[in-house]
Amino acid sequence: MQQDKARKILRYEKGGFIEKEDRVVVEQPATIKINGKEFITIVCSPEHMEEMAIGFLVSERIIPNYRDIQEIRVEEKTGTVHITAEKVYPFFEQLQNKRFISSCCGMSRQGFVFAHDAMIAKKMSDVSVTLTPENCFQLMEGMAASAEMFKQTGGVHNAALCDANGIIVSRMDIGRHNALDKIYGYCLVNNIDVRDKVIVFSGRISSEILLKVAKIGCEIVLSKSAPTELALTLADDLGITAVGFIRGGSFNLYTHPERIVSKETSAT
Amino acid sequence: MQQDKARKILRYEKGGFIEKEDRVVVEQPATIKINGKEFITIVCSPEHMEEMAIGFLVSERIIPNYRDIQEIRVEEKTGTVHITAEKVYPFFEQLQNKRFISSCCGMSRQGFVFAHDAMIAKKMSDVSVTLTPENCFQLMEGMAASAEMFKQTGGVHNAALCDANGIIVSRMDIGRHNALDKIYGYCLVNNIDVRDKVIVFSGRISSEILLKVAKIGCEIVLSKSAPTELALTLADDLGITAVGFIRGGSFNLYTHPERIVSKETSAT
Repeated sequence: MQQDKARKILRYEKGGFIEKEDRVVVEQPATIKINGKEFITIVCSPEHMEEMAIGFLVSERIIPNYRDIQEIRVEEKTGTVHITAEKVYPFFEQLQNKRFISSCCGMSRQGFVFAHDAMIAKKMSDVSVTLTPENCFQLMEGMAASAEMFKQTGGVHNAALCDANGIIVSRMDIGRHNALDKIYGYCLVNNIDVRDKVIVFSGRISSEILLKVAKIGCEIVLSKSAPTELALTLADDLGITAVGFIRGGSFNLYTHPERIVSKETSAT
Repeated sequence: MQQDKARKILRYEKGGFIEKEDRVVVEQPATIKINGKEFITIVCSPEHMEEMAIGFLVSERIIPNYRDIQEIRVEEKTGTVHITAEKVYPFFEQLQNKRFISSCCGMSRQGFVFAHDAMIAKKMSDVSVTLTPENCFQLMEGMAASAEMFKQTGGVHNAALCDANGIIVSRMDIGRHNALDKIYGYCLVNNIDVRDKVIVFSGRISSEILLKVAKIGCEIVLSKSAPTELALTLADDLGITAVGFIRGGSFNLYTHPERIVSKETSAT
């Protein structure tokens, strides 16, 4: 499946129009059907759709474990991912987009907007991975170097799963959380433990992205962009180290600083 | 309601950490209740929530016309927008996120992913507004100048409603389509005709943004960023002029070029 398409455009430069061929990034629907029933349609970049579906369904606990998926088949022509699974979480559709009212649940969880997120986001209370400031710069540079698609067409988000030694897998998508779902799906299929890994993301750390990192189960998220206040409230509460604005030799360390250590005291 | 919040962070620069106060953009839930019933929760920037709710409900045809809203009340403490309305489109919840299968509807509409969008997006067959290349640069510069929030905290999208003479209203939001809903709500409340106006957007022209422009009913969308192929297919079909990469004296004109004219032949 092609990730970008050629298109005739009019380019205006130096005071006049010229006809030109341009490459434009492709956006395509992926409809997930579970046991024959239409479940959800996600608009995405048309690559690694199978891993995206797996990552989405398991990170959102719609299907509790990867091993509960008995069969998966991608029908490229119609953009459909057919899933056969025995255990399917029955309350997702009712809970999706429903507001979380913290007082009636007796939990202290701060910052949650949606009831479903409050139920499933994991709390990271360990320090399974540490990074030095130099690691942060190297991983951000490594992700940028692997993001060739971005340079060709503009307008896609890039994400990578890393450890202190470098990038393990990187994925792009026009949708923000899709790139993370693709990475998680890859890890599930290839039996890669995510616990001691780091998420590097090209875009802003919104509450949606922070929650996705928590649902995947990573302890550190690095970004070259800005976080939101709600994302940082959630990061505080969920035990996640959030680092932003990694640019030109500097960065901002927002939450749980214990995982960013100077070289001398690094555990890795 | 504050749009950004002060926060103590650790800033790493020149090889060491310093403690610093930083401004971080606020993300907040707005739960729309219609006639007392929870309808949808949108995570947004906490300003102009009333206009956002109006723009969202009317552009998505959940409430057919602005005059059908009998009462609107924002409860800031809980982030709730209470709407009283007699006519409410009953099929939105069933149709939302449902895949559009073009063959069974007998329509020629290309590129639609969701059934609800295919039903409500307007086709622009007139040329109610034209711009010169100079207008495109001036409007993009004007929007950037009005986007002070972006410079302070990073990570928000800016949108503006314009005509050839300049900006009429500009709005920011951490969510992509929220900024456009806020603009449309402002126009409905203040009785501003959108037909001969232009949308200027800071971010990528995705299919979601292009559809929102069509639902609002504007004929031209200008962006400093990239479009997606699906957005351009929809722009072709819906009669919308899409202009991207407006930067440094050049731009790309992707669809319906009849509305971008040289100075001599401009109708405006």
